[in-house]
Amino acid sequence: MKIDEFRPRLARWTGSTNRITQHMIGGRDPSVINLSGGLPAPEVYPLAAIAAATQRALARFGAQAVAYGPVEGMPALRSAIAARLSGPRQKFSVANVLITTGSLQGVELLGKILLEPGETILAQHPTYLGALDAWRPREPSYRILDWNADEARLGAELRAAKFAYVVPNFSNPTGALVPVEARERLVRAGRTADTVIVEDDPYGALFYDGDAPPSALELSGDGGRGDTYRGPVVYLGTLSKTVAPGLRIGWAVGDPSVIAALSLAKQGADLCTSTFNQAVALELLEAGVERETLPAMIARYRARRDAIVTATRQYLHNSFEFTPPSGGMFLWLKSRDPAIDTDALWQAALAEGVMFCPSSVFDPSGRDTSAIRLNFTLNEETKLVEGVRRLAAALQRRS
Amino acid sequence: MKIDEFRPRLARWTGSTNRITQHMIGGRDPSVINLSGGLPAPEVYPLAAIAAATQRALARFGAQAVAYGPVEGMPALRSAIAARLSGPRQKFSVANVLITTGSLQGVELLGKILLEPGETILAQHPTYLGALDAWRPREPSYRILDWNADEARLGAELRAAKFAYVVPNFSNPTGALVPVEARERLVRAGRTADTVIVEDDPYGALFYDGDAPPSALELSGDGGRGDTYRGPVVYLGTLSKTVAPGLRIGWAVGDPSVIAALSLAKQGADLCTSTFNQAVALELLEAGVERETLPAMIARYRARRDAIVTATRQYLHNSFEFTPPSGGMFLWLKSRDPAIDTDALWQAALAEGVMFCPSSVFDPSGRDTSAIRLNFTLNEETKLVEGVRRLAAALQRRS
Repeated sequence: MKIDEFRPRLARWTGSTNRITQHMIGGRDPSVINLSGGLPAPEVYPLAAIAAATQRALARFGAQAVAYGPVEGMPALRSAIAARLSGPRQKFSVANVLITTGSLQGVELLGKILLEPGETILAQHPTYLGALDAWRPREPSYRILDWNADEARLGAELRAAKFAYVVPNFSNPTGALVPVEARERLVRAGRTADTVIVEDDPYGALFYDGDAPPSALELSGDGGRGDTYRGPVVYLGTLSKTVAPGLRIGWAVGDPSVIAALSLAKQGADLCTSTFNQAVALELLEAGVERETLPAMIARYRARRDAIVTATRQYLHNSFEFTPPSGGMFLWLKSRDPAIDTDALWQAALAEGVMFCPSSVFDPSGRDTSAIRLNFTLNEETKLVEGVRRLAAALQRRS
Repeated sequence: MKIDEFRPRLARWTGSTNRITQHMIGGRDPSVINLSGGLPAPEVYPLAAIAAATQRALARFGAQAVAYGPVEGMPALRSAIAARLSGPRQKFSVANVLITTGSLQGVELLGKILLEPGETILAQHPTYLGALDAWRPREPSYRILDWNADEARLGAELRAAKFAYVVPNFSNPTGALVPVEARERLVRAGRTADTVIVEDDPYGALFYDGDAPPSALELSGDGGRGDTYRGPVVYLGTLSKTVAPGLRIGWAVGDPSVIAALSLAKQGADLCTSTFNQAVALELLEAGVERETLPAMIARYRARRDAIVTATRQYLHNSFEFTPPSGGMFLWLKSRDPAIDTDALWQAALAEGVMFCPSSVFDPSGRDTSAIRLNFTLNEETKLVEGVRRLAAALQRRS
């Protein structure tokens, strides 16, 4: 028998995937300041509330809390999500909601049900790397969505794509907030083109300088006439940024026909999302955990945003330009100097003890080395300032 | 704007998937006796142990228990799985283990990393429908694995396929136990052909009439010389059948090169398995929950197996033949009468108040209507007998 030589052939797409994510979310080296992931501050997790919710969930649901559950999710949790999103513009019903194992699973399942191998996605550029990863096995092509295009142009772009993917609230990675008029144009064009618009909204609760504009989902509603949404937007939400990512509870909300197709894909992905975690999530939502924790979380993140903006102006102004974000988790720094290669800078920065996310991982072609993404929610202010200082030192050393 | 007419084009494979699974695991109509799913008895779930493990996990890991974790899984849980599988034939290390969101996720990720669209899988026939579902988006071809083929023939079949998929312990759906000699032949052929052998083992602890033979994974080890497994078998395990499926904790164990590729696929599927559930699973394993609950579970399931075997002999002997299974969760009934169409019988049986799984869903072509699968673990004896009686009534009504 051959030993130590087992080398199966792998599918082609596995050669194209990024290896940064594993550093971002798995990194545990305490000497490195991690500015790379979309990670919440660990001190905001409501541990006591989760412990209490677990006991209540087991008492309330008994064996059902640890059994297999419906593929689409626990009816009570689907109802709670439908109620939470319902408003004057649109009512949602259980048929509009699929519970997912984190909102990334919704991203992945949408690619599966909509794309034939090689088909086209219309996406903001740069694009969330988790979405690029999720769709790699379908080997899609990408076209760049121009938020400023008129409705006719958007319609043509949508008809040429299998779906559009947008993050209107603090676009990952750029942190940009898309104005309501642009959302409305896209929604009208999507309806005319019968093309799905995937609206990924993990950061929708994290507004630091004002209120959230209506989502594309709300803007595409029927004005409150029906009790079940029928339209082109599939909205992805999550507890990962406002409660705790380790529960892996997300939801996809959309037209019942799309939800039914997503359920078929989910039955072949993980059968159902953990019923245990769904029951805990339901208890947390019913107890109003987000209402209780969000104000302090937002105050904390606002202070951190302010700290990283100040430090970046102080240490990196000569090398990078940026727009301070009004919410979310990220600062997007565009290089002023074409000689800066941010992939090379990643290695240099790691040697200085700081980790960021280079722009190449947000580019479907992997070639953009002109920018970097910094997270400001995981670390407290002094660490953020020290991280930016180390990044400046890495830049210095290179030049 | 058009309303009520949103109809996006879906990917081709969505037209081929089965709609039985949603009935099996989601069915909640108490008047229907559910003999269709691979569902454990709800009364065996160790609810008190899970409640206690949750509190210990939150105290031990704090914020880490609800944060994002490494894509591959919590190191302590990976270690525990490696230790549990290690024995005189092979030692396993952390590099051999990926934690998955239920073992079905392992099945799905293997299809993703190994198959180009349309490539070939060598599988037992009939085949677990969850696996067929998981791979539908890759639109594979299937060839039938003949366990009685000699090593040269097996090698040729393996070289013509991207991987083999087997369930040697109580093959789903047939309940058949594959003899050790056949496992050895397949393992030797797999090593020579450098072809992955996926060994799915959800039922490996559920032996009612004797001890388990060595797994293909064990048989493909290096005899205890190395501390990291390197070989063709990728073994899938789970807590779903011995502890509780609602935790969605499974594991894939294999060559480090395969585990690394699976991790890349997992990062695009759900980023990581719930750290909360991983921490709870670790506490449960460390507390020896399976050692405590398995003997009573096995006694219970053995009595149920005996009851369904007796009832089937009594009520269905004229219509179906079967071999009593020595473990697992299923009885596989092959029709003696070519005129019986088990898809049609499914509808008739539902009208009588009993649900089973028809053979068509275990056939990649969907055409086999000659057999049915009955589960005997979910319901207590009197319900099993009544379910079989209803099935006989449905048969009677049709003829």
